Amino acid sequence: MARKTVFAHAYAVVMAGGSGTRFWPLSRRQHPKQLLELFGQGTLLEQTVARLRPLIPPERIYVYTNELVRREVCRRLPQIPRAQIVAEPASRNTAPTLGVAAHEILRRDPQGLMVVLPADHVIAKPAEFLRVLRAGCETAEKAGRSVVIGLKPTRPDTGFGYVRVGAREARIAGQEIYRVEKFTEKPPLAVARRYVASGRYLWNGGMFIWRASTLLENFAIHQPRMADQLARLAEAGGVRSTKTFRRLFPQFEKISIDYAIMEKISDIHAAAADIGWNDVGSWAVVYSLSAKDHEANVRPARSLCLESHGNMIVAKRSFVVTVGVQDLVIVETDDALLVCARDRSQDVGKAVLALEKAGFRILL
Amino acid sequence: MARKTVFAHAYAVVMAGGSGTRFWPLSRRQHPKQLLELFGQGTLLEQTVARLRPLIPPERIYVYTNELVRREVCRRLPQIPRAQIVAEPASRNTAPTLGVAAHEILRRDPQGLMVVLPADHVIAKPAEFLRVLRAGCETAEKAGRSVVIGLKPTRPDTGFGYVRVGAREARIAGQEIYRVEKFTEKPPLAVARRYVASGRYLWNGGMFIWRASTLLENFAIHQPRMADQLARLAEAGGVRSTKTFRRLFPQFEKISIDYAIMEKISDIHAAAADIGWNDVGSWAVVYSLSAKDHEANVRPARSLCLESHGNMIVAKRSFVVTVGVQDLVIVETDDALLVCARDRSQDVGKAVLALEKAGFRILL
Repeated sequence: MARKTVFAHAYAVVMAGGSGTRFWPLSRRQHPKQLLELFGQGTLLEQTVARLRPLIPPERIYVYTNELVRREVCRRLPQIPRAQIVAEPASRNTAPTLGVAAHEILRRDPQGLMVVLPADHVIAKPAEFLRVLRAGCETAEKAGRSVVIGLKPTRPDTGFGYVRVGAREARIAGQEIYRVEKFTEKPPLAVARRYVASGRYLWNGGMFIWRASTLLENFAIHQPRMADQLARLAEAGGVRSTKTFRRLFPQFEKISIDYAIMEKISDIHAAAADIGWNDVGSWAVVYSLSAKDHEANVRPARSLCLESHGNMIVAKRSFVVTVGVQDLVIVETDDALLVCARDRSQDVGKAVLALEKAGFRILL
Repeated sequence: MARKTVFAHAYAVVMAGGSGTRFWPLSRRQHPKQLLELFGQGTLLEQTVARLRPLIPPERIYVYTNELVRREVCRRLPQIPRAQIVAEPASRNTAPTLGVAAHEILRRDPQGLMVVLPADHVIAKPAEFLRVLRAGCETAEKAGRSVVIGLKPTRPDTGFGYVRVGAREARIAGQEIYRVEKFTEKPPLAVARRYVASGRYLWNGGMFIWRASTLLENFAIHQPRMADQLARLAEAGGVRSTKTFRRLFPQFEKISIDYAIMEKISDIHAAAADIGWNDVGSWAVVYSLSAKDHEANVRPARSLCLESHGNMIVAKRSFVVTVGVQDLVIVETDDALLVCARDRSQDVGKAVLALEKAGFRILL
């Protein structure tokens, strides 16, 4: 394909099915992280779609979400054709979703390129991001190749998988492309430290590019059973045949694309991206990315902080007063209140689990 | 008077006009501390009246409050005759109130004894308290005498006035009565320490007993102008003549009974009381007096505390989750939320002042 043509075949697959608990009580099953306006510029989902605009228009964007939140996703993304906003009837991790998406795109465009993007991340440098996507698309153009958008690690985070890269293979419009030697799972801290120190590892942020046909070929080789199921579903009408989709989709194995495909194949290339990426994994991260007052508090207008420092306050209804408190996360909704040490905000999920065990499902 | 007769002449004057800010956001101008159910056994006001039951029946109880809260006081105390629940049209501190009350009681009973009690204190030993009241009434029976119920100090508190006592004068039904040498104002810490170490000082908790006639004689001597105003008001119908009362009462000087009378007279006796008294001056005090869970948290049923210790949680509406927080006061109402370090809870009043200055009077 000529360069211009490549991008005309680019389709985004936005993964918006997450139902995380780390932003409880603001995030709920019916209102997950990707639908939060954490930074006051629309939801993370809307930002994800808006960022693509110069490269991939709404007509070529697919959103995969779940039945609990589809209506809200549609409301937030009126520009995307309704048939391209798919509610999965069950949570089956990323491999089945991407297999289904590949069939949908292939049906429409035999040369279609899939750009896979989570809907709940922050990217501070959108222009850089587009440059990376362009280089990634050009790299993935060749049949058989897979591209992972690797993030240059800034700390030995144990919450991500890493990819080990070999020699630099190309430089496309200033963007370095490496050969990937290995996909790894989330490492323990000591290993993560080694990874970062070596300079040969990138974070795997779940952003991939490949031809739809390439992905399906890889399914056929490495997940033949799932490949058959996917083909059967596609023949029966795919996501358009709602009844069949609802019946067949839950039969898929629950497995991630990393484990099902990426760790098993060899022709992978990585774009080493410096795009201000953040997966916004906790209230502490939201705090670090938000504007602060002169006492380093992130707080709403209707609040008063007396000798209080470093607090993150979100309140939907109440006027909030703090006196002499430091480094707290305070989040109030209509029916719930969280008060959490900021450096413990990664444990909010634990608390939500405890809530569920204690029988307070209504709060989830 | 014979002993039995003494008590038949005892009238309680419950001072329920307070409008403190230390329990914000639970306490508001229209819902002050004495109307809070801080310990889940009725309001402090109701407890104050209930404690008196064996000694002073409702027919002989007067409650002085303000116009903002009179309706709620009436609702809480249906057993007290409506005419005896008086709403002052302006806040004039305790001296004018007690002068008015003395006239009311004297009109009804020339031998009337006034038992003056704040409505917003906790008394953990009600039987002891009644014993002290009985001894106090017997002591105050003699015309010209004033009795202060002195509290044995348990710490060098700088928030109370103290009374210095001389030799023990009597022992009535096991209750020691001392001659008072001096009333003092709230002392600085070093002085308070000396007071407590000396063993000769008692806290002045604002509880007094005297004949109504004795008080008015003292007004005539030490506050002649106010005595004239009081007499004029009484002649015009007192609190029963609502219009006159509303017009005349605001003309009184704003002055405490301690300053107007007690510091100026000599025939004062003190009952040294050990009655589990507490003026409940802050959320920290409520915490110390409340039942705690195994992690020393005071919290409602609809809450979950994960690795959290020593917190005081009051929530009217929300389910509260805490993660990794220590020694906080968390109080949520319908429109406001306070998060305060427990050892800073004496500064809640400051925060409320700041709220008022910032123009948020609706929250007060």
